[in-house]
Amino acid sequence: MANNEKLIKIVRDNIRSYADFPKPGIIFRDIFSVLKVPEAFKILQELLVQRVKLKAPDAVIGLESRGFLLGPIIALQLGLPFVPIRKKGKLPGKIKQLSYTIEYGEDTFEIQTDGLQKGQNVVLVDDLLATGGSLRAACTLVNQLGAKVVECLVVMELKDLNGQENIPVPVHSIVQF
Amino acid sequence: MANNEKLIKIVRDNIRSYADFPKPGIIFRDIFSVLKVPEAFKILQELLVQRVKLKAPDAVIGLESRGFLLGPIIALQLGLPFVPIRKKGKLPGKIKQLSYTIEYGEDTFEIQTDGLQKGQNVVLVDDLLATGGSLRAACTLVNQLGAKVVECLVVMELKDLNGQENIPVPVHSIVQF
Repeated sequence: MANNEKLIKIVRDNIRSYADFPKPGIIFRDIFSVLKVPEAFKILQELLVQRVKLKAPDAVIGLESRGFLLGPIIALQLGLPFVPIRKKGKLPGKIKQLSYTIEYGEDTFEIQTDGLQKGQNVVLVDDLLATGGSLRAACTLVNQLGAKVVECLVVMELKDLNGQENIPVPVHSIVQF
Repeated sequence: MANNEKLIKIVRDNIRSYADFPKPGIIFRDIFSVLKVPEAFKILQELLVQRVKLKAPDAVIGLESRGFLLGPIIALQLGLPFVPIRKKGKLPGKIKQLSYTIEYGEDTFEIQTDGLQKGQNVVLVDDLLATGGSLRAACTLVNQLGAKVVECLVVMELKDLNGQENIPVPVHSIVQF
């Protein structure tokens, strides 16, 4: 645990923050600054893999597009299938879709129906938990295929926004702001 | 080499094709079907890493969003920085941008100016080479930062579209259709 705290600090120290992006008053936390530093990215991978291993899921799901950076590096390490949730119109074949509310208007997530089987347990991965709207929608979509989200795993959590309250499953974050 | 051919066949056999997606007359080649099969994804990673290692670049660049699935798994394995090229308005900090023509209208790519240094050699990674428009634009953007693309590496190449002719640097594909 003490060792993990040191590792988490290295990840945290490599997350660059940008004031007033994408609009005034917002502090943007940039996951890409971690991916530019090989030692920090390797540590982040280890922390994510360690966490997902505990949950022993049947598959890892990543949300487009920053979840695509993280889900595959976990799935490969654990020998698990990686399954994407994408924005509307990008996945071929039979899909299940769900629309959800965003700040101005709505967005739609899609998943391939053959991506998961009934009764499977999955971990959902994304870079950031803010208000939790997209992760909540993703959980619902997974449930509609008869599978279960055992955990939402994010690198960064914005605690002030209380996103965990919006998500019907346990959420784990590596770094909190 | 003979061994590589066997490995390439496993990747190829796991790429699912969908007729008439996203529109009539198009055969869509789906990279995600490979990522759902852990043994095939592992082999794909090995083939990509092997290829990038030969080029000994200073960084790996992935194009949003399917390049995000592949770039990080290569960068981590080789201990290299991963740098993203994203669609307009998504990257914080100082950015360089370039607009390019797509089928109907235009699109804009952006890169963080501190993502690369002058004189660096990079490999650009994406899932698919079709007409080559987005990879060509990405090469130009990298050049504008004073860095050099030593190779564009894709998993799948649609040979009939002659995309390589549009790209000013060598292109390597794992599987050809």
